Amino acid sequence: MLDMKSVEVSAPATIANLGPGFDVVGLAIENYRDVVHIELTDDKVISFEIVNNTSVAVASKAEENSAVISALKVMEYSGVRKGFKMKLVKNVPVGIGLGSSGASAAAAAFAMNILLSGKLPMEVLVKSAGEGEKVACGAPHLDNVAPSLYGGFTMILDVEKPEIFNIKPSVDFSIVLVTPRVSLPRNKTEYARSLLPKKVELETMVKQTASLTRLIVGLMSGNLEMVGRAISSDFVVEPARSIMIPRFYEVKEAALKSGALGFTISGAGPSVFALTYPEDAENILYEVLRKFNENDIEAKGIVAKPSWIGARIEEH
Amino acid sequence: MLDMKSVEVSAPATIANLGPGFDVVGLAIENYRDVVHIELTDDKVISFEIVNNTSVAVASKAEENSAVISALKVMEYSGVRKGFKMKLVKNVPVGIGLGSSGASAAAAAFAMNILLSGKLPMEVLVKSAGEGEKVACGAPHLDNVAPSLYGGFTMILDVEKPEIFNIKPSVDFSIVLVTPRVSLPRNKTEYARSLLPKKVELETMVKQTASLTRLIVGLMSGNLEMVGRAISSDFVVEPARSIMIPRFYEVKEAALKSGALGFTISGAGPSVFALTYPEDAENILYEVLRKFNENDIEAKGIVAKPSWIGARIEEH
Repeated sequence: MLDMKSVEVSAPATIANLGPGFDVVGLAIENYRDVVHIELTDDKVISFEIVNNTSVAVASKAEENSAVISALKVMEYSGVRKGFKMKLVKNVPVGIGLGSSGASAAAAAFAMNILLSGKLPMEVLVKSAGEGEKVACGAPHLDNVAPSLYGGFTMILDVEKPEIFNIKPSVDFSIVLVTPRVSLPRNKTEYARSLLPKKVELETMVKQTASLTRLIVGLMSGNLEMVGRAISSDFVVEPARSIMIPRFYEVKEAALKSGALGFTISGAGPSVFALTYPEDAENILYEVLRKFNENDIEAKGIVAKPSWIGARIEEH
Repeated sequence: MLDMKSVEVSAPATIANLGPGFDVVGLAIENYRDVVHIELTDDKVISFEIVNNTSVAVASKAEENSAVISALKVMEYSGVRKGFKMKLVKNVPVGIGLGSSGASAAAAAFAMNILLSGKLPMEVLVKSAGEGEKVACGAPHLDNVAPSLYGGFTMILDVEKPEIFNIKPSVDFSIVLVTPRVSLPRNKTEYARSLLPKKVELETMVKQTASLTRLIVGLMSGNLEMVGRAISSDFVVEPARSIMIPRFYEVKEAALKSGALGFTISGAGPSVFALTYPEDAENILYEVLRKFNENDIEAKGIVAKPSWIGARIEEH
């Protein structure tokens, strides 16, 4: 990989939080991938072009885009300062809880590291992408950028200095992903955070940690039922944020009744997701959409698969 | 086991909490075991005798002792009502954070279940012993009774209806257990709980859940270093309760410097413990005792081993 002048990298969308894993556990989703092409230049000029395949506007100024800032952070940690031309192809839907800016930041960090001889370890790329995200969006969302980079499920073991544990259970599963059309304030992520309680009762924290324990044990042992039950048992975030999703608990009940192993809000919402055995996925998707529609809420959804690779070079 | 009229069962002391695993994760300790002998009788009379080998008074009235109440709960769940004679030999030190009444309750539940043909599953015994503890001591302490019953490390997956995950990592380790002599209110457990914050900042909860994630991943993968680091990183309970242990942070630092993998308060305290490789244990014990003594705090301690069996029948 030495002496590469340009590279194209893609990184997947993600589902953060996973119920009791708020800000800690995330999952990469293969179906949407942002693509970043970077070419190093000998001047110190940065040029940035964006091709937006999503339906929502994204930060098109270089100094406001998470991908550019993430790439600059990788340069900073590598002790290099060159110019670059970046082209970002946005495919991950924006603002619906799928870690869109995190995917851009992850792809950019991965790409720039390759161009600088791949010296930084993955955890520093997580840090770089998180810092990029923070400048661009106000918060680092490590539980988004980490799965975008690693693929599979990732866990943040230390909030202050990124330490990641990555796991790819050897069981096949699908994710039913549904986005209801709801009108939310422009800065949706900030709004979603403002819904959260500032403080949590100690007793509630204990219930949450028991549920998180089930989630981690389930992931480590590849027990999908355990993972599902844990995802469905969030005592802090789901109760607070579900108010922005009309009929949330009815929809959740419909999903669980039709075979979902677990169901909750994806990231900051308003998308919701079900963890499911592949054979039940289409039926669950149908039931979730039906329940939203029955209540006059427009919604669209897909059956998604986990991304086991995370960020990767795109060959041409 | 059918038609047994009497049985003798022992159950080990425990370390509850394990840092970020407050009220959720516990460990059984082989070095101290309470012994319960129960003989069924055909009347409905309950007689209770206690042999106290510890240095502190314990509840000697049948209706106040966790072992008796626990045995009665097992009868209730089994749908049986007979009389019994119980003899309890207390070996687990009382009131220092080693789950003493939990060990009695666990042994009694296990014993009574055998006498009633062993029909109840372990998780119902945890529930019974927990309810016994609650009547006797005010709180169920499932993170004490579960390891006493199962042995090894146990995790509470649901606070409301006991579901337990039990793990016995195949790596050898020791526990350095030290009890400083400090004067505490008579109802120490209640006092230790009163020190805890009623509410926890959401940000602190996230730090705690990241640390708990490290603990569970470490336990599941048999990685002692991960377990140790997690034990040492408790953002909620240790900061609040350490005020009852003079020089706590100096002692912790001394333990970690002399090779402890992790260090924190055991259960409701005031005992402290270090997780350690067996070869470092004696040295850590020495350093911890020295640090307490250097500050004119009397302390005594042992190098302890995990209990891999939990509650067991004692043969004669």
